[in-house]
Amino acid sequence: MSALKGAAIFGQSGGPTSVINASAAGVIQEALKQENITAVYGMAHGIKGALTENFYDMSKEDAYELDLLRTTPSSALGSVRYKLKHFNEDETDYKKLLEVFKKYNIRYFFYNGGNDSMDTCNKVSKYMQQSGYEMRVMGVPKTIDNDLFGTDHCPGYGSAAKYIATSTMEVYQDARVYDKGMITILEVMGRNAGWLTAATALAAYKGAGPDLIYLPEVDFDIDDFLAKAEAIFKKNGNCIVAVSEGIKDKNGKYISEYGSDLAQQKDAFGHSQLGGLAATLANIVKQRTGAKTRGIEFSLLQRCAAHCASLTDVNESYLSGQMAVKYAVEGKTDYMVGFEREAGAEYKCNIKLLPLSEVANTEKKIPLEWIKKDSSGLTQDFIDYALPLIQGDSRPPMENGLPRFAKLKKVLAAK
Amino acid sequence: MSALKGAAIFGQSGGPTSVINASAAGVIQEALKQENITAVYGMAHGIKGALTENFYDMSKEDAYELDLLRTTPSSALGSVRYKLKHFNEDETDYKKLLEVFKKYNIRYFFYNGGNDSMDTCNKVSKYMQQSGYEMRVMGVPKTIDNDLFGTDHCPGYGSAAKYIATSTMEVYQDARVYDKGMITILEVMGRNAGWLTAATALAAYKGAGPDLIYLPEVDFDIDDFLAKAEAIFKKNGNCIVAVSEGIKDKNGKYISEYGSDLAQQKDAFGHSQLGGLAATLANIVKQRTGAKTRGIEFSLLQRCAAHCASLTDVNESYLSGQMAVKYAVEGKTDYMVGFEREAGAEYKCNIKLLPLSEVANTEKKIPLEWIKKDSSGLTQDFIDYALPLIQGDSRPPMENGLPRFAKLKKVLAAK
Repeated sequence: MSALKGAAIFGQSGGPTSVINASAAGVIQEALKQENITAVYGMAHGIKGALTENFYDMSKEDAYELDLLRTTPSSALGSVRYKLKHFNEDETDYKKLLEVFKKYNIRYFFYNGGNDSMDTCNKVSKYMQQSGYEMRVMGVPKTIDNDLFGTDHCPGYGSAAKYIATSTMEVYQDARVYDKGMITILEVMGRNAGWLTAATALAAYKGAGPDLIYLPEVDFDIDDFLAKAEAIFKKNGNCIVAVSEGIKDKNGKYISEYGSDLAQQKDAFGHSQLGGLAATLANIVKQRTGAKTRGIEFSLLQRCAAHCASLTDVNESYLSGQMAVKYAVEGKTDYMVGFEREAGAEYKCNIKLLPLSEVANTEKKIPLEWIKKDSSGLTQDFIDYALPLIQGDSRPPMENGLPRFAKLKKVLAAK
Repeated sequence: MSALKGAAIFGQSGGPTSVINASAAGVIQEALKQENITAVYGMAHGIKGALTENFYDMSKEDAYELDLLRTTPSSALGSVRYKLKHFNEDETDYKKLLEVFKKYNIRYFFYNGGNDSMDTCNKVSKYMQQSGYEMRVMGVPKTIDNDLFGTDHCPGYGSAAKYIATSTMEVYQDARVYDKGMITILEVMGRNAGWLTAATALAAYKGAGPDLIYLPEVDFDIDDFLAKAEAIFKKNGNCIVAVSEGIKDKNGKYISEYGSDLAQQKDAFGHSQLGGLAATLANIVKQRTGAKTRGIEFSLLQRCAAHCASLTDVNESYLSGQMAVKYAVEGKTDYMVGFEREAGAEYKCNIKLLPLSEVANTEKKIPLEWIKKDSSGLTQDFIDYALPLIQGDSRPPMENGLPRFAKLKKVLAAK
């Protein structure tokens, strides 16, 4: 294992989270310390920044602002959704990357994101191997969706889960306050995997959560749902339902596209839009039951609420970035940093390395045996899994009553 | 001024807030201390609980749980929307109240709410005076809308404003993260007064807020708005807009009822619904500009987010409840407790008493001179006004990573 001297480049990709910048801080601060890393660059808008030679010289940033990245939500360097074609199909982007890497002697490549981003990372890694360009490539996981394969959980999930569970508990207090009750529909992100919606079960575990929880892992039956919601409403005078945005019926049709005229929303190009599921379901429920209904979408707030983040998640996010650098300097390449939970009552997660080719594009869903058959929630297995991930409170330092987020100078690297 | 010995009854009314229970704690804990107050009752669902003899004996509650009310959102005793007819029109409810008050020797009446609730409180006060039933009646203010007349501000507003400003700052980080930008519409509560939407200007003051802010105090011109939003989007690649749910055009038509098929949403009874304004506007903007758009509704979260409350607000809410009791015991009646701000750079508010007849049903709107003519925000006068109200952080004690809210026993008073 030889020492490899050269510059490092780091990028953020995909949907932001409350803690993706904590991983950035881990990568950047650790890389700035490493003797073998001669420069640390941050890509503007992920891989696009590398392709267009738009990246920042991170050594120009104030240490205090880099520290603040730990508690600053969203992607401070800018994100991107750009899918690299396979190099067997089109080599253009790869040639450009190689040219840039050579020009700046970039020998370390760190990429922070979810499934698609690990695909990018994997392709870059494989291409550079094939080209004989010596480079250490490491993926740093991130996704509120928690659907990355091979790791116990993903940085970003714990904070989103904590926010969702907390807000659900608060809505629970609010939604049942009148003498005349209502049916409340909470819409949570998650197209294919129900991890985020399942987090509302943590609120139920604390005695203040939904009566019904619907995840995309299971076909949604509108009639069964309506019957259940109506029965609960008649019995208790209130009913709270949590739904994943991506629930579908047995024919694969999104429920957000259903029935009422509300559901006929098309965008300017005639595409049906996801989102608006809460409003759609609330309307259907109202027509059926006559009950007062309210649809609530957690929307973007669930992925950027740094004021209600999990300290466990923030620390692990930082650590995953930091360890990616350490392992790369030690000679590892072509891996994603992941977490492996130790058996036993006390929560402890260790870092493990996963081959990039294994994690790219594979989705991890909730085990079906963790989902109660009657849609009333998740089993204790899920609670035991998720509860440790939301422990500890992280929030930004406050300045004049409001959060103080990092302000980066973003000095472009000299060309 | 004679000592008046008897029971006290307290009720919560109207839409809940993050801090209405802090006022409840102030009333209940102070009342339990007072020698002249022989029993302390909490109405189930406000005035309806008094009318139906459904109220709880607050002396049966654990001291620790009563303390927790300070940080428990929503209305722990249950709320109600019930408008008492004037007693000249229909005396039925008043006779019933008088009968109940006599039966339990209730001599102190505390009612916590907004405009409508102060109307209830005022009517009860006047009727009891007219009937010669000696009673001390005090209103305790509460409304996130901040629209109560005669007081510098209302308990509940500071916490809602802090949550809205914080979440807006977080969305600001998130909404401009991609290389391809979008136009984001934030919908904030407030039908007639724009105080809550104005709170997004605090985020702008911190450098992370909306480009455009629209309040119901000013007629909304859709063409002017579209031109402005498009220009900002073209120039900056992003645009964030905050709108009050209650914005109307110059003909008095709600914008949420506008134009696109999206806006044709009717409820089961054929009424147009408020809400959905963000989605409506986002759709109109998308059709006009072709930009990616996103509508975000803060929804119920803005009035129940105790995890992001203002400590100033929590303390003042408690104080207003406590002082209502002290003043009543001292002989005051027929007042609402309000706040008067001292002149000077340092924030200091003193309690003042406002005649109930003056505050009932009067709405306080934002001074027009605080609203910038180009819709780009609020003036420094508003910032100076609002900033002190969001200072200090209040959050519930945490238990296993989630908030621990008060659990009341709710022991019904012996009939």
